[in-house]
Amino acid sequence: MTYRAPINDMLLALNYGAGLQAAIKAGHYGDYDSDIAAAVLEEAGRFATDVLAPLNKVGDQNGVKLTDSKVTTAPGWPDAYQRWIAAGWNAVSGAEAFGGQGLPLAINAVCTEIWSASNIAFGLCPLLTLSAIEALDAHGSDDLKKIYLGKLISGEWTGTMQLTEPQAGSDVGALRSRAERAADGSYRISGTKIFITYGDHDMTDNIVHFVLARLPDAPAGTKGISLFLIPKFLVNADGSLGARNDIYPSGVEHKLGIHASPTCTMTMGDHGGAIGYLIGEENRGMQCMFTMMNQARLGVGLEGVGIADRAYQQALAYAQDRKQGRAIGAKGNGSDAIIVHPDVKRMLMQMRAMTAAARTICYATAVALDVSVRATDAKVRSDAAARAALLTPIAKAFSTDIGNEVTSLGVQIHGGMGFIEETGAAQHYRDARITAIYEGTNGIQSIDLVTRKLGVNGGASVWALLDELSVIVKKVEASNDPAFGSTGAKLRDALGSLERSSRWLLERLGTAPNEALAGATPYLRLFGSTLGGCMLAQEALSARDLGEQLGDARRYVTLARFFAENVSVQAGALERTVIDGADAVIGADDVLLA
Amino acid sequence: MTYRAPINDMLLALNYGAGLQAAIKAGHYGDYDSDIAAAVLEEAGRFATDVLAPLNKVGDQNGVKLTDSKVTTAPGWPDAYQRWIAAGWNAVSGAEAFGGQGLPLAINAVCTEIWSASNIAFGLCPLLTLSAIEALDAHGSDDLKKIYLGKLISGEWTGTMQLTEPQAGSDVGALRSRAERAADGSYRISGTKIFITYGDHDMTDNIVHFVLARLPDAPAGTKGISLFLIPKFLVNADGSLGARNDIYPSGVEHKLGIHASPTCTMTMGDHGGAIGYLIGEENRGMQCMFTMMNQARLGVGLEGVGIADRAYQQALAYAQDRKQGRAIGAKGNGSDAIIVHPDVKRMLMQMRAMTAAARTICYATAVALDVSVRATDAKVRSDAAARAALLTPIAKAFSTDIGNEVTSLGVQIHGGMGFIEETGAAQHYRDARITAIYEGTNGIQSIDLVTRKLGVNGGASVWALLDELSVIVKKVEASNDPAFGSTGAKLRDALGSLERSSRWLLERLGTAPNEALAGATPYLRLFGSTLGGCMLAQEALSARDLGEQLGDARRYVTLARFFAENVSVQAGALERTVIDGADAVIGADDVLLA
Repeated sequence: MTYRAPINDMLLALNYGAGLQAAIKAGHYGDYDSDIAAAVLEEAGRFATDVLAPLNKVGDQNGVKLTDSKVTTAPGWPDAYQRWIAAGWNAVSGAEAFGGQGLPLAINAVCTEIWSASNIAFGLCPLLTLSAIEALDAHGSDDLKKIYLGKLISGEWTGTMQLTEPQAGSDVGALRSRAERAADGSYRISGTKIFITYGDHDMTDNIVHFVLARLPDAPAGTKGISLFLIPKFLVNADGSLGARNDIYPSGVEHKLGIHASPTCTMTMGDHGGAIGYLIGEENRGMQCMFTMMNQARLGVGLEGVGIADRAYQQALAYAQDRKQGRAIGAKGNGSDAIIVHPDVKRMLMQMRAMTAAARTICYATAVALDVSVRATDAKVRSDAAARAALLTPIAKAFSTDIGNEVTSLGVQIHGGMGFIEETGAAQHYRDARITAIYEGTNGIQSIDLVTRKLGVNGGASVWALLDELSVIVKKVEASNDPAFGSTGAKLRDALGSLERSSRWLLERLGTAPNEALAGATPYLRLFGSTLGGCMLAQEALSARDLGEQLGDARRYVTLARFFAENVSVQAGALERTVIDGADAVIGADDVLLA
Repeated sequence: MTYRAPINDMLLALNYGAGLQAAIKAGHYGDYDSDIAAAVLEEAGRFATDVLAPLNKVGDQNGVKLTDSKVTTAPGWPDAYQRWIAAGWNAVSGAEAFGGQGLPLAINAVCTEIWSASNIAFGLCPLLTLSAIEALDAHGSDDLKKIYLGKLISGEWTGTMQLTEPQAGSDVGALRSRAERAADGSYRISGTKIFITYGDHDMTDNIVHFVLARLPDAPAGTKGISLFLIPKFLVNADGSLGARNDIYPSGVEHKLGIHASPTCTMTMGDHGGAIGYLIGEENRGMQCMFTMMNQARLGVGLEGVGIADRAYQQALAYAQDRKQGRAIGAKGNGSDAIIVHPDVKRMLMQMRAMTAAARTICYATAVALDVSVRATDAKVRSDAAARAALLTPIAKAFSTDIGNEVTSLGVQIHGGMGFIEETGAAQHYRDARITAIYEGTNGIQSIDLVTRKLGVNGGASVWALLDELSVIVKKVEASNDPAFGSTGAKLRDALGSLERSSRWLLERLGTAPNEALAGATPYLRLFGSTLGGCMLAQEALSARDLGEQLGDARRYVTLARFFAENVSVQAGALERTVIDGADAVIGADDVLLA
């Protein structure tokens, strides 16, 4: 079954839940014409349905092959990639000076969801290229930009991010790849990297690797890491391709999912060292990587949203088609479609509501990123940057947890058929699993949220957000619309839990950091459940205001209500877990090591 | 990495959490010697570690092959199965009159966990045979028992359960396989069955199929279904094997997990019809199947426990071995094992606590089943039967949900390595997924709990259980042990939520059944979270009483506390979801079908 981008839901989420309309009205998007979004997204949806979605299973079944140090992708993939470039999809948010379309990140975020939904393994390649573009744009020399930036933005060449080594995963500072200074100002890099996404492939004639390595005289840890650009093929002065550089795929992983995305072991230095060019300053590579990471983390969050929506669409279609049992009170023989059963309705609503909440959180992160670079006022920019920094770990971890939960529900709705690979539901479940791990595990996102985001300025970013959310809750309560059920009360309770948990964690950060860390994961969940609930409520309020524009607004009200009463309602328990649960975590060694 | 049965934890759970010791003291187990359990389980653990665990990955990687209507299992499997029979493991709970050891189901339940933990795809075969034994023992004629029962109990032949057809999954009554009466009193069966576990294999020289089919003059629906015994090879009067019967595997499924377990499409009737023998009475097949299902459902619950424990053991070992980052306050260079990080501790505690709770719920179900047939007093037997009936859907659904959640955490703790198939964590995650689906999806278990178990006698079984759990909570509170933290308060709140939700659902069952059904899944979760919390608290209290016998009892107290503060604490939110959440589920069509 194919995928269709839910454009109405996306536009409502983007414009009202995520605040794009408000930001435009406030002038933060300059002369950006908001009508363009609908047109671009319609077009993106068509490309996804026509070109990418049909290759999703092909890629899963064929995977990739490594032969003679060359990776071959699945049948049809190189062609699809060429169509991707030709249609200009790689360049949506790229700088206009280098051939990009210069559209807001928020638009590209919706596109990223669409690519991920239609074909997560395919969409991952441009996601990595996007991070490479960002690092090069922010930190690269003009000479390097001149050669590489345009090709990366157009997608004619793809990019990779190479951090991980066997002993250096979450702990990037432990990496050992070596860079030696060469006489001509370039560097010779040697070492082995693992888990390199699209480290090699046959879809483009060159690949631009961004590799972290250590100079001989570098300090230990993260302060001694430098970032290098290493092209697969060297580039001649006239822009044509030169010699093969000394960076080769030496293995591809056999993975649980995203089979079509080559996960490579990369070896540098078997032939004298890979020629690399410094990005930014020596020993300042981590700063460059952090630049790349924010958008990459948002991108992974959007993968979670996309694959969740794909699983939802497939499960919904199955539930309307598959006949088993009868509705309560149905007469005569025969069977009803399983969607009549309340337990199936619950699962579908859970899928849809969680996906919608995660979607808006991700879009809101993109809007904040946009405003942080586009607004004219410096204070507005720095507030937006703080908001984006706060939301990024939530966008990444909450959305990918949801991606996993929703794809699991997708399998469940298919019953026994869900366990059969032919059905396709299991592929989404397998593919989704990595999103909670890569670009910083979800545990690391939680720790980032508690230690680096909540902790800034005594929680200023959190209090500012809570104030905004509180306004939404007041509007829900003021609406007196019985269709909201107990939404207002549930969200108000959730805000209280979030505020108290935040204060408790802030206190512990200085005095008992292990206690704060013990509560990081439930705190992030609490944050996402509260934030998502308020955002869906805002969308429901906006849909009511918009009247018939989006069809019956009632469906957004019911969706917001479902989320508040089924997900946000867990806030109280999560608060108790954060506050009461630390002791048992700290004392875990008595249990685990006994 | 291998698997070691956690015998101490199992004995504590069995004897104290699940109430085996109390039942023995009350005389319900006759002259059963409780010392035998430890000896049998030690032996079972050794067999699992030595013979079954090493084949777990072999089976996953090789899967099964169907050639010329014959299924070949993975290398080493037929040999392991012969060792299994020779060691007597198939006969643990079988009737002594037919060569079984006549041990309690409770002992066999622990063994089932052990087999599932070491090799779930292997353990599934004897699980199906056990159901077949049960149906034959309860409903078969003496003639059939004489020929088949001993061979099934010894494991010389295996059994299958054949319900499902393409149009008849959860709705068994929709099946169409036909049975015609033959002149000699036997039947000729034709039709196609799907999803038949171990429908064919090369581990034994005969297979005894238990097949549901419909007589030509049968009423529609479940009241027109009969159960037939259909041997793969007919059996001569002297017990030797005769002609090949007309029941063949015509396909094997390509599945997400349990690759080594052949899931067959079975075709009957291409050569005149499979010769079958009636089990029980004509048109009463569903009653026979229900007999089989209770134990099969408990067995699947135990699969959930087993695979969760396997994943936990592997994750724990990895977390002690894998070095990344430093503990807070650690000095100098180098890295610590990731188990020092509070977020990793939390995941491991979550895995262990959830597994322990599910384990005890399953064991308690087995004890109730034992007492329901072993007790001398009829009232004790019928009360125990009601208890077993109440606990079975919880044992099945809660434990298998936990199996999925825990195996997912197992992947997460491995980070990127968890996504690589070589590591093995992903196999547990894939294998676990089916347990929430087969033997009645977990949604169906929830519906069974609400409509058929809670509903009996105005909730009498539930009130009786709540009274017992309340006594445990009082003991926790009376202990005044600060190590329990807020365990007592959390469990008391949970009991209140469970009681109120039960009353609300009971009221709705008659007046608004769709509202009751809408809350079935959160209600089952609430039930399991409350019950599991109380049972772990009881184990902690018992461990304190037992003193040094189990090492430091503190670890069971901390484990119970963790569960209460992290899992049982969700009871209030689940209660609100049951009670407030129905409207949005009932109104879901506005959202889903818009």
